[in-house]
Amino acid sequence: MEITHIEHIGIAVKSIEESKKYYEDVLGLKCYSIEEVKDQKVKTAFFMIGQTKIELLESTDTEGPIGKFIEKKGEGIHHIAFATNNIEDALKDAESKGVRLVDKTPRKGAEGLDIAFLHPKSTMGVLTELCEDKNKK
Amino acid sequence: MEITHIEHIGIAVKSIEESKKYYEDVLGLKCYSIEEVKDQKVKTAFFMIGQTKIELLESTDTEGPIGKFIEKKGEGIHHIAFATNNIEDALKDAESKGVRLVDKTPRKGAEGLDIAFLHPKSTMGVLTELCEDKNKK
Repeated sequence: MEITHIEHIGIAVKSIEESKKYYEDVLGLKCYSIEEVKDQKVKTAFFMIGQTKIELLESTDTEGPIGKFIEKKGEGIHHIAFATNNIEDALKDAESKGVRLVDKTPRKGAEGLDIAFLHPKSTMGVLTELCEDKNKK
Repeated sequence: MEITHIEHIGIAVKSIEESKKYYEDVLGLKCYSIEEVKDQKVKTAFFMIGQTKIELLESTDTEGPIGKFIEKKGEGIHHIAFATNNIEDALKDAESKGVRLVDKTPRKGAEGLDIAFLHPKSTMGVLTELCEDKNKK
């Protein structure tokens, strides 16, 4: 597979409102978008740094994936997302090399990207997302 | 503070030799350097993706920070490092805004960078490194 850059880093937070202050006032970044992804039971806030986004993830439901993550591990880095130009091929390639897939086919994520997760058991504990921005094409 | 890009993402692994296969064979990245940082009791392996490096961290001592991290949390993302053009000013700025510092003054990290960590208690659980490449100036 060919990865072009790190699309974003997903960070689980208890409160976007509280965390936003740190990312804006201390790190000097600017939140350019807040979006709810109902399917994933999260509210997201995005900040751009060079090629990469920071995606803060606040759970809208304690039973959602971010709610469970925070309950188990506390706030912190949740996943890393790599940009690819052909997500279907990238998934096939990963599966053919023995990687366990969370999503066998891409689904829609925040910002209209096509996304799919690899299972952390196959990626040395790193929850890994692949994504492709088909809107740009 | 002004951050230019994400310099690297540090990932704790049990074995660089094993993990390298995944990063190279599955993700298609290339390991361009392996370096031991004795001070931190780690061996590091670097891969470039766009502006950002993946830094795999293997403990050389179970009592070192990465050894303890893996014992407590298992393999996974350990820290995120932001590049700044003036690390001393960035640290002063963070401290003045109430951020707890792990390193009050910069020290030498891998690849000869000047680095300093912010405490995860002040950064919503994200172990955060600031770094400056003074070799480029």
